[in-house]
Amino acid sequence: MSQAVNRYRADLRELQFLLFEQFGLGDLLGQPPFADWGPDEVKLVLDEVYRYACEVSGPLNAIGDSQGARLVDGQVKAPAGFADAWAKLYEAGWQQLSSEAEFGGQGAPLTLQNLADELISGSNTSFQMYPSLTTGAAELIVSFGTDAQRARFCEKMICGTWAGTMCLTEPHAGSDVGDCTTAATPNGDGTYSIKGAKIFISGGDHDMAENVVHMVLARIDGAPKGTKGLSLFIVPKVRLNEDGSLGEPNDVETAAIEHKMGINGSATCQLNFGDNDGCRGLLCGSEEHQGIRQMFQMMNRARILVGTQGVAAGAGAYLSALEYARERKQGSSVKAGRDPDAPRVPIIEHPDVRRMLLDMKARIEGVRALGVCLTMHMDRARALAGKDDQRAAYHQGQVDFLVPLFKSYATDQGFQVAATAIQTYGGAGFLRDHPAEQYCRDAKIFSIYEGTNHIQALDLVGRKLRLHGGQLVADFLAEVEGLAGAQAEHPRLSAGVAELAAAQAALGKTLQVLGGWGQSREVELPPLMANRVLEMFAETAVARLLLEGAAIAHEEMGSLEAGSAEHTFYEGKVQAALYYALNVLPGVRSKADIIATADRSPLEIPDGAFATV
Amino acid sequence: MSQAVNRYRADLRELQFLLFEQFGLGDLLGQPPFADWGPDEVKLVLDEVYRYACEVSGPLNAIGDSQGARLVDGQVKAPAGFADAWAKLYEAGWQQLSSEAEFGGQGAPLTLQNLADELISGSNTSFQMYPSLTTGAAELIVSFGTDAQRARFCEKMICGTWAGTMCLTEPHAGSDVGDCTTAATPNGDGTYSIKGAKIFISGGDHDMAENVVHMVLARIDGAPKGTKGLSLFIVPKVRLNEDGSLGEPNDVETAAIEHKMGINGSATCQLNFGDNDGCRGLLCGSEEHQGIRQMFQMMNRARILVGTQGVAAGAGAYLSALEYARERKQGSSVKAGRDPDAPRVPIIEHPDVRRMLLDMKARIEGVRALGVCLTMHMDRARALAGKDDQRAAYHQGQVDFLVPLFKSYATDQGFQVAATAIQTYGGAGFLRDHPAEQYCRDAKIFSIYEGTNHIQALDLVGRKLRLHGGQLVADFLAEVEGLAGAQAEHPRLSAGVAELAAAQAALGKTLQVLGGWGQSREVELPPLMANRVLEMFAETAVARLLLEGAAIAHEEMGSLEAGSAEHTFYEGKVQAALYYALNVLPGVRSKADIIATADRSPLEIPDGAFATV
Repeated sequence: MSQAVNRYRADLRELQFLLFEQFGLGDLLGQPPFADWGPDEVKLVLDEVYRYACEVSGPLNAIGDSQGARLVDGQVKAPAGFADAWAKLYEAGWQQLSSEAEFGGQGAPLTLQNLADELISGSNTSFQMYPSLTTGAAELIVSFGTDAQRARFCEKMICGTWAGTMCLTEPHAGSDVGDCTTAATPNGDGTYSIKGAKIFISGGDHDMAENVVHMVLARIDGAPKGTKGLSLFIVPKVRLNEDGSLGEPNDVETAAIEHKMGINGSATCQLNFGDNDGCRGLLCGSEEHQGIRQMFQMMNRARILVGTQGVAAGAGAYLSALEYARERKQGSSVKAGRDPDAPRVPIIEHPDVRRMLLDMKARIEGVRALGVCLTMHMDRARALAGKDDQRAAYHQGQVDFLVPLFKSYATDQGFQVAATAIQTYGGAGFLRDHPAEQYCRDAKIFSIYEGTNHIQALDLVGRKLRLHGGQLVADFLAEVEGLAGAQAEHPRLSAGVAELAAAQAALGKTLQVLGGWGQSREVELPPLMANRVLEMFAETAVARLLLEGAAIAHEEMGSLEAGSAEHTFYEGKVQAALYYALNVLPGVRSKADIIATADRSPLEIPDGAFATV
Repeated sequence: MSQAVNRYRADLRELQFLLFEQFGLGDLLGQPPFADWGPDEVKLVLDEVYRYACEVSGPLNAIGDSQGARLVDGQVKAPAGFADAWAKLYEAGWQQLSSEAEFGGQGAPLTLQNLADELISGSNTSFQMYPSLTTGAAELIVSFGTDAQRARFCEKMICGTWAGTMCLTEPHAGSDVGDCTTAATPNGDGTYSIKGAKIFISGGDHDMAENVVHMVLARIDGAPKGTKGLSLFIVPKVRLNEDGSLGEPNDVETAAIEHKMGINGSATCQLNFGDNDGCRGLLCGSEEHQGIRQMFQMMNRARILVGTQGVAAGAGAYLSALEYARERKQGSSVKAGRDPDAPRVPIIEHPDVRRMLLDMKARIEGVRALGVCLTMHMDRARALAGKDDQRAAYHQGQVDFLVPLFKSYATDQGFQVAATAIQTYGGAGFLRDHPAEQYCRDAKIFSIYEGTNHIQALDLVGRKLRLHGGQLVADFLAEVEGLAGAQAEHPRLSAGVAELAAAQAALGKTLQVLGGWGQSREVELPPLMANRVLEMFAETAVARLLLEGAAIAHEEMGSLEAGSAEHTFYEGKVQAALYYALNVLPGVRSKADIIATADRSPLEIPDGAFATV
């Protein structure tokens, strides 16, 4: 397997376009809370993170896949080179860009952190799982821990001395978190004895950090059933002494690691807590039964990260297929007819290869734009907090609305784009010599973990559409309508903008259908149709953002020489937006029609009729 | 990994429905050319092949995946147990069901062979590759070889004493078969010296048979460029003595085997012919430059087999997910609201799980019906040959028309259904403990080999639609119209039938658009839209067949007790047809609209605009 073939690639020009030309990150820089950050710093960081991804984490991607994480004598060994990459990541500060300065972070906008995360995840998803879960765990303590807990854990976890995990899932319960049976018994000294089994714990153990701090959902003896009785505990693999130094091992056992379709370099662990009655944990914060509320508050960030993994895998697969399509010569031009003497051409000249490439480009740039839109709402909410609470609330509302869209749609697209990338290569794409097939295998999990994509759809249909009396969706649709109105007569984009307006109308129709079901207390059709409803919103959101970006690009082109690098870049934005609007948005109308038929066949078919086996 | 979890499952009741209730195989049995076959024999064979698949080939599926084929000292070793399964397969006669009695076959309808192939492929795709390529190679000699060649090779290859391969692809040429550079030089003694390299040769070497007979496309010195100058050669791994016994090794070297995303148990070989100038082959038949014509004639059968692999992988993944959904308890019923005391239910009770299950069922039963429809046309064409040549030609025309639809659509659906199966499991589906993820990995290659799915679409749009002055497509549409007319008022299916009529109208519109492009000599838009056109035809074909089957099922239900096993089975047919028509067919109209917009964005985007890297 040649190094060149596996070289990780990213399109930094596109990232800069999103940050500075479309989403106006510059407005937020140079003033609190981002006073230390200017455009040059942001660009420099992206350049350097990209270099790290190409030189450090990227070359370990195929190694991690073939070697996998291994369980040796009860301890997980990360794949070769991962520990070095971990050390370099934290030394450079790329994992803690947006973390609080108080704990060793750099106070950057989350939008920058998220694009850095994309580059690292795109170069090596399995590796990036370890630090990202660690940051997620640390931020729970930052937000909800006591002062003493923050002082003990946060800097060490944010700077990578210690690692962290999130322990929610149990063998019998799966997505039904409220069915959690892990028990916490007060010891009378402020600690709790923890007893139970957790599964699917990413980075549940490894040898890259001195300690692993588990954030464990458990039920204190006598607490209510369901999610409301859950509390969150800090359970370190190695207990801490009074002075905060490492002490005795805690009773946390890695019972097994899973063998999976992908992300093989990421250790997916089965953890047993307290099998020998010696597992002690601390309640996170000082109040019991707050576990689900705490988890929920942090879930947005975790779900954005997974959406970003989808973008990253799709982008990596796309750019590898693009490179292959430019280099691989095969067949003659369709314009040459059947002339056997016609020269062989790079496959990028074949219409169907171009269709696949533009399809991948449009989908990936679209979901990335959705992610940046989302994190910019977070950064703006943060910047406005205490200054203009109404505007801050608006931005926070859009965050809440967009999270399920981004998590679901970006992960579905990441998998689909990776599969298209394989197809673009032809037979070579099925080989492990090229990165597309690993991207595809890795990406399948994104639609499942951190809340399956159906759970996201339920969050949208069952909760977000109704939140604040429907204000979030009204604000969302106003943005769509704003663009559709402003650009209806655009010289190059009008056909795409007309499709956007039609999609908006289709959404309106679907909201009416959902409203009708709400009034008639219909409980089965909303979940049955939820995935489609989510897709409709996500596709409309993506088209809106692509067309908005294309309109900006078109403006810029006016003053540029045709054929110049910048002119060509902007032309790509225009074509991608048109492609997406004309080829994907008609599906939004089609879905609205399907939803309106209220087909109940999946509900009506008898269980025994699914198959005679 | 427990044996129980990996148990292969198939729905034989569904296969019997297709054969005897929907497609009337009974009409053909008991008379030439199937005089030895009656319904009981057919059913018995399916039962026994299923037993073989469950007990012999199925248990080797995960082993083949994890162990893979290995290249040891220049010889390929098949995974453990494969040689035993090979011997039992041929001893039982399941691979040679439809082969000529003259060569040890059983003269069964191809329809039966193809369903047997589905069962074996579904239980272990990698294993089934070896005998199926062997049969394909043997049938080339049966059809085109000289009498002496048929006598020497055919029985041994059809009965599994020797294996066979198809050697088309070359490293630089890929799908562009006409760019073949393997050379054949006449030796003056009737043999040719073969020199060249071939890649992606499935079963290119292994240790399950005494010899491997390669069917090699090569160009005789001085032959024209392009496909017209190609000839087909019989190149055994071990040369034959005058008396037909095995002699000296031929100069055929296995240079490497590929490491792949899936079908790891199938050895995908790079073969070098004549590196030491000692590779001798025989021209297949007695006429030069017939290679591409010979290959084309056999291609239908090979493409049907790949479509069947798609059906098989999808069906296997679906039934494994169904079993899991029936057994796995998680969460409470949506009808119970948020009551934490509500009982846990099997996940099959959740609406979105039911949606995924019915989606998989409808797609898989639909593409299987398309495959049976296709092979029945082949069997009918054969039965009518020489008796009613006009009807025989009609059936052969439908074969030619349906092959690209079945190869492409069944393989795309197989992959998609396997991915849906993973999602149905949730996190467990991503684990190697369950078969869904292997089905998904194995299935990705089906859309690529035996002519990529885009090549199928070009075959449809560039060739089949125009063949015989458009008679094939006219006959196809007449079948759709016939059903749409006959069942328009059906008490339960009318809504689905209305969608079918709308899809038919959309096809008519698209044919007009294509006709317009033909008149204006537009060469780029037809290939750009070809995949969509193929999908529209395939979805319409599948809906027609599902609705036809549902109408038959509905008739049968009238005389049955509600809740009985048979009543329940037939109700499943009705619901699957309704689901497919109401949830998939609206996409046909949407695609027609998209095609009509003639969006040229993939053609117009400059090469440099795909990305700035």
